[in-house]
Amino acid sequence: MLFHVAMQVRLPPDMPADRADALKSREKAVAQEIQRQGKWPHLWRVAGRYANISIFDVADNDELHALLSSLPLFPYMDITVTPLAQHPSALPAEARA
Amino acid sequence: MLFHVAMQVRLPPDMPADRADALKSREKAVAQEIQRQGKWPHLWRVAGRYANISIFDVADNDELHALLSSLPLFPYMDITVTPLAQHPSALPAEARA
Amino acid sequence: MLFHVAMQVRLPPDMPADRADALKSREKAVAQEIQRQGKWPHLWRVAGRYANISIFDVADNDELHALLSSLPLFPYMDITVTPLAQHPSALPAEARA
Amino acid sequence: MLFHVAMQVRLPPDMPADRADALKSREKAVAQEIQRQGKWPHLWRVAGRYANISIFDVADNDELHALLSSLPLFPYMDITVTPLAQHPSALPAEARA
Amino acid sequence: MLFHVAMQVRLPPDMPADRADALKSREKAVAQEIQRQGKWPHLWRVAGRYANISIFDVADNDELHALLSSLPLFPYMDITVTPLAQHPSALPAEARA
Amino acid sequence: MLFHVAMQVRLPPDMPADRADALKSREKAVAQEIQRQGKWPHLWRVAGRYANISIFDVADNDELHALLSSLPLFPYMDITVTPLAQHPSALPAEARA
Amino acid sequence: MLFHVAMQVRLPPDMPADRADALKSREKAVAQEIQRQGKWPHLWRVAGRYANISIFDVADNDELHALLSSLPLFPYMDITVTPLAQHPSALPAEARA
Amino acid sequence: MLFHVAMQVRLPPDMPADRADALKSREKAVAQEIQRQGKWPHLWRVAGRYANISIFDVADNDELHALLSSLPLFPYMDITVTPLAQHPSALPAEARA
Amino acid sequence: MLFHVAMQVRLPPDMPADRADALKSREKAVAQEIQRQGKWPHLWRVAGRYANISIFDVADNDELHALLSSLPLFPYMDITVTPLAQHPSALPAEARA
Amino acid sequence: MLFHVAMQVRLPPDMPADRADALKSREKAVAQEIQRQGKWPHLWRVAGRYANISIFDVADNDELHALLSSLPLFPYMDITVTPLAQHPSALPAEARA
Repeated sequence: MLFHVAMQVRLPPDMPADRADALKSREKAVAQEIQRQGKWPHLWRVAGRYANISIFDVADNDELHALLSSLPLFPYMDITVTPLAQHPSALPAEARA
Repeated sequence: MLFHVAMQVRLPPDMPADRADALKSREKAVAQEIQRQGKWPHLWRVAGRYANISIFDVADNDELHALLSSLPLFPYMDITVTPLAQHPSALPAEARA
Repeated sequence: MLFHVAMQVRLPPDMPADRADALKSREKAVAQEIQRQGKWPHLWRVAGRYANISIFDVADNDELHALLSSLPLFPYMDITVTPLAQHPSALPAEARA
Repeated sequence: MLFHVAMQVRLPPDMPADRADALKSREKAVAQEIQRQGKWPHLWRVAGRYANISIFDVADNDELHALLSSLPLFPYMDITVTPLAQHPSALPAEARA
Repeated sequence: MLFHVAMQVRLPPDMPADRADALKSREKAVAQEIQRQGKWPHLWRVAGRYANISIFDVADNDELHALLSSLPLFPYMDITVTPLAQHPSALPAEARA
Repeated sequence: MLFHVAMQVRLPPDMPADRADALKSREKAVAQEIQRQGKWPHLWRVAGRYANISIFDVADNDELHALLSSLPLFPYMDITVTPLAQHPSALPAEARA
Repeated sequence: MLFHVAMQVRLPPDMPADRADALKSREKAVAQEIQRQGKWPHLWRVAGRYANISIFDVADNDELHALLSSLPLFPYMDITVTPLAQHPSALPAEARA
Repeated sequence: MLFHVAMQVRLPPDMPADRADALKSREKAVAQEIQRQGKWPHLWRVAGRYANISIFDVADNDELHALLSSLPLFPYMDITVTPLAQHPSALPAEARA
Repeated sequence: MLFHVAMQVRLPPDMPADRADALKSREKAVAQEIQRQGKWPHLWRVAGRYANISIFDVADNDELHALLSSLPLFPYMDITVTPLAQHPSALPAEARA
Repeated sequence: MLFHVAMQVRLPPDMPADRADALKSREKAVAQEIQRQGKWPHLWRVAGRYANISIFDVADNDELHALLSSLPLFPYMDITVTPLAQHPSALPAEARA
């Protein structure tokens, strides 16, 4: 089941650089592990912002919340979740160029 | 180049049903043609709303505007475009489950 | 799986009373049928507004959208969906007074 | 009498972990005591956010405010209260699947 | 139990004057009847707007909704309800000048 | 002349408890003195928030600003003032139950 | 007593031109009469909008509402009133160049 | 050329009182000097807020920005500028009472 | 003197196509005439919207308002004006590649 | 390809002056280097705010994000990007006065 997830990161401007770097490094590792599991099929940077737009593919709302709240940057993010449904005009992937 | 496009449809409540149906039918045909060209790789329904969230893959801003303004429902939609960039933590598709 | 659904109804002020009454009557019938199926466990009126706050219990996002878009008042409603997860402090129902 | 209560928690990012843990632990104890009294019949986590959506069942506005302001996280929460009324289409609980 | 109620009236600009006058006249009669019952203790005009700010004194949320939805202008109003509680610094009426 | 005043208090979360208590104690004393003078005829707590809704009865805008800015919590409050006028449907107090 | 008044005019786009012209002509006459009485000391156009920013000088809130609601365009305007007080740094007019 | 300028001051709540006082004192001196030059013809306090509404009379946008950014409180203010034009219904000052 | 002008066009969905075409054709002629006079140096389409972002170069606020309100689509546009000043880091045009 | 970029700078009010000065100095150097490369053709100050409105001319979204996130003030800016397309009424530069 797909969810659209928008994440805006807001690190405190006075966080020491090494702590911010450590956080980001752990965030990257966790994010890539979730991607490898096939549960985070799309992850894009919003141009000009410390923000991303993502698509998650999970079993249910509880799994979605567990994944998002496991992210090391979770306490510093403003996250908005939008449930996605099948669109009647969407073609199957194999029908696209 | 990828763009995140959010479209909210607002048909006037007093539009005759046959005219609305004709519009939606033409919209579907145009939307599927753009998908077949590979320029609209993702199209999802927002659960509970007459709205979609889409990803477009186009050469530039002009092509994006040309495609969006060619949609039969364009005069009835509130559209928000967000330019997407490569995310440094995103794995290539083949690395995902 | 639970979803929080807020619905604000906006009937055009010039809709003839008999057409509005017919719509509302069909809405009530559909709403009660969905409740009987156990998929709409809570439905409350927002005091002072032609609006409701509801909890839906569905298999997935697609079923949720199918149910909501089947409502006769769907074209006249502004609907906001919020996915709900288990809260770690919530007691099971039988533990409450 | 039922009230819809939305709570968004905003702990200062620099609060020491042990103080945050102590606060959360006391919050959980108080929240469960209010649930046991039957005055907080529903408590859900908003997926992806440190927030909840709750239903309170209280005698009046004063009792509601007393309960909410007794929560240890009260100084760190943005709370919105919506009074709920009986919905004319709502079936009694025993009529649902 | 007290509720703060803000009402913004939005009559369609093309409503015939006699129909608007009839509506307003019925609104006034109903509003004064509710005041006579002691359930609408304060009613003020917001300077410069076709809007009011009111205090209602009712038994519960259901009575409040019943009163508000009985107003002839109800379909043309945007209403926001805020539940009020006793303020710890408020003096009893007899202690004020 | 009546004014509707909405005050939202936002104390910094790291203010020492004794300083906050002293502030609140002085606030209460000043608020009650203004009430005794008959210039603050209504003061209600907004249920679930550290906020109030008030009615002030003053000679003019300057007196209103002088009173509000004399409150010890003034630097920590977000205040919104709405001028009130006589409502044509309002009954005199003695005509109400 | 001074009030800051922002008025945004929204004439229905399908209002016949002669009716709009008649309205605007009556509006101008009333606006100039209020200015002649010294109660509308400033009236500016917001560049690029069918809107104005004004200063009114009236005895009290009731006179302000009476003047504003007497404007022929009142039913088509969104009006926001802000009460103004003496600023401690403002020089008397004669002290300015 | 006239501009409408709204300034909301937000001093950090933990700024030492003497530093705040020094800032405000310098602000007053600069503000009065600009008034004496005839470039700040109106300055009003917004009742209930640490905010003002002002009218500036300057040669062009660059002079306006130079004046505003010279204010000692500039780093602590949220400023909104609205360009004003001649209103077709405005009477010359000498035609007003 | 430069102004940033954002224009969002909102034609009524039921405007007859020939009337809309005539309006747009006149709009284009007027817009190009203002460009030829050097007073509208930049005009861009916002991708995905019936909107533009423009830069105007005019003598003062009055000229800006006169130009904008002369546009045939003016009654159907929501326009926001932002005054621009010289940026201290901006290089002269000839210093750019 | 052109993008409209709005940047609002929010330096923490307690940042030491020398650190702020160093940041601004590096910001200016980087901004001027990007201008020299022809990728930042317009940069204007918003009158009255520590903000700018800019036009970027880049190859694609990735280049835009790389440039913006290379700015020394990037962690302190709220940036909004709007993709621009060719406007059908825009004249070529040489056709303007």
